[in-house]
Amino acid sequence: MDRRRFLSASTVAGATVAASALPAPAIAQDRQDWTMVTSWPRNLPGPGIAANKLAERITALSGGRLNVTVSAAGELVPGRGVFDAVADGTAQLYHSVPAYWGSKSIGILLFGSQPFGLTAEEQQGWMLHGGGQALYDEIYGRFGMKAFLCGNSGPQWAGWFRNEIHSVDDFQGLRFRTAGLASEMLAKLGAAVVAMGGADMFQALQSGALDAGEFIGPWSDSALGYYQIAPYYYWPGIGEPSSAEECGVNKAAYDALPADLQQVIAFACQSLYGEVTTEYNTNHAIALKQLVEEHDVQVRKMPEDVEIALGNAAGEVIAEMRENEDELVRRIVESFLTYRTSMVSYMPYSTGGILNARALDYTFPG
Amino acid sequence: MDRRRFLSASTVAGATVAASALPAPAIAQDRQDWTMVTSWPRNLPGPGIAANKLAERITALSGGRLNVTVSAAGELVPGRGVFDAVADGTAQLYHSVPAYWGSKSIGILLFGSQPFGLTAEEQQGWMLHGGGQALYDEIYGRFGMKAFLCGNSGPQWAGWFRNEIHSVDDFQGLRFRTAGLASEMLAKLGAAVVAMGGADMFQALQSGALDAGEFIGPWSDSALGYYQIAPYYYWPGIGEPSSAEECGVNKAAYDALPADLQQVIAFACQSLYGEVTTEYNTNHAIALKQLVEEHDVQVRKMPEDVEIALGNAAGEVIAEMRENEDELVRRIVESFLTYRTSMVSYMPYSTGGILNARALDYTFPG
Repeated sequence: MDRRRFLSASTVAGATVAASALPAPAIAQDRQDWTMVTSWPRNLPGPGIAANKLAERITALSGGRLNVTVSAAGELVPGRGVFDAVADGTAQLYHSVPAYWGSKSIGILLFGSQPFGLTAEEQQGWMLHGGGQALYDEIYGRFGMKAFLCGNSGPQWAGWFRNEIHSVDDFQGLRFRTAGLASEMLAKLGAAVVAMGGADMFQALQSGALDAGEFIGPWSDSALGYYQIAPYYYWPGIGEPSSAEECGVNKAAYDALPADLQQVIAFACQSLYGEVTTEYNTNHAIALKQLVEEHDVQVRKMPEDVEIALGNAAGEVIAEMRENEDELVRRIVESFLTYRTSMVSYMPYSTGGILNARALDYTFPG
Repeated sequence: MDRRRFLSASTVAGATVAASALPAPAIAQDRQDWTMVTSWPRNLPGPGIAANKLAERITALSGGRLNVTVSAAGELVPGRGVFDAVADGTAQLYHSVPAYWGSKSIGILLFGSQPFGLTAEEQQGWMLHGGGQALYDEIYGRFGMKAFLCGNSGPQWAGWFRNEIHSVDDFQGLRFRTAGLASEMLAKLGAAVVAMGGADMFQALQSGALDAGEFIGPWSDSALGYYQIAPYYYWPGIGEPSSAEECGVNKAAYDALPADLQQVIAFACQSLYGEVTTEYNTNHAIALKQLVEEHDVQVRKMPEDVEIALGNAAGEVIAEMRENEDELVRRIVESFLTYRTSMVSYMPYSTGGILNARALDYTFPG
């Protein structure tokens, strides 16, 4: 998008916001043009497409009164610049992931993913029924924003490895690409953790600068070609049991909307959460089959003693966050832990029991 | 609601529908009053509350242009009469479960639950990304309706038993309460399956007319007091790995809406799906803890050979549906099986692997 055109549109929207003292119905009849900046290349399968869908859904649900245009990474602001751009009003909303904002507050990371933490379904449960949304509101409120989760890429995989993993010792000095709190967990096992984008990870594996790395899962990863260099594909990705996508909205702009358009944004996001999660699952399943059958990928389970060591390391990471100097971060950690404890105790009887029973040896059509 | 008042409101809505030849903006400015009939007592925890939320959400998202009022079971029509009432235009929409409409077509049952079938998350995946919604539209179209899934009570439990289950033989002649396709599965093991409501199940257990039965899960079940009579609570409820709630809309009324209000109904339903699913999970976890700690409920895992026998029985039930004389039912079965096969092969690496790793023995705060 042309920056001058955007600024012009932005001014119009700003004028509407400033006019919030007018009676609500008058505002409701107005058409507002909003810009959604994203952290993704235009139309990137997965999050780029999800951003487009969110913009279209808000526009459609509003009957065109809130007309949202997507500005991809680098068009108006860089992909990692969207948080600041929405906080300062350069754009009205963004589509990104909480995982990118650890430098704003480590507490934000818990809304994206926690090692040995919540699945995508449980993460939504924490937000809606475990007090998560109120804390999410509080921490984003510090930056003049209101945010909603609007998708989840689900359980990640443990990663692509050039060589097999036999014990915890194999992580000592392993040059590994990952992100967020999973980085801290792996560092505790002696890994040399590196942060980089998905495309860079391919180059680094190829050049030998990396020994291994994880990105998302079979669907996204197969497009990036890691299997050509690192053929051992390990599960489960317990360092990231889920990874949420979010929509951040400038709070002044949000507060100035009539109540029905506030609901439109909230429920457009909420409706997309499960749609995006299940799109990843659906496509991961198809892609894994292709990786194994067509590209001879070697699927391996992480040894149980490694999983236990990773669990202890993840526990240390969270225990340290519990002592954070910011009392809001401490409250976020306690709320997460309360919900997690309840789910960890319950899910083995529920979804866990179902999945294990379904995997037994019986005769079923298909 | 007073029946005369409802009919009057209905006539107003009908007049608006008949006016669909008018330009769309003129219709969009109108306020329409719609009645949602439900299969639930007013404010019943779980589905009754979900129905209220759906009505409020549609009203709020529409800015009051589509004003939905809830009529609980027995107020305008009986709980099991809502399908016919919406099909014939007595009400514009209903909140119920697909599980109730097997007498309309056995194919409808697959949109609610399948023994050894899909979890709540996977069910949404089939609908949105596996061709499920198009088939759901086709079969409800036969009855002049358009329907959306709008919630899920998640994995059920295997049930409350007066005596422990040691082998498949213990199901021979067992007088057991369940519903839907799970009934057919259990009948193949020799159980004397009985259909009845949740409150009746308590009476029947108390009088000795029933030996065992399942209803939903800890949250709903604890309110009904089964634990007082049948103390052995078995998991997993693989006969119903999930159980969907739905919103059925009179298709002529739906088609006459402007596009934005059609989207409002669709995405109000979709946004509620995960919210309801996670509400059940959250409350089930809390309720199970109370059942065990305060009421000495004995939690038991179904023996593995029983699970395998149940899996074979479920496979027979689905294989029989595959030969149904109705070609649309056959297409629904094939679509379900394609999606199920993909998920059964993938989920052990994904959510299953996460839940099993998370249940290992490591140190974590909480």
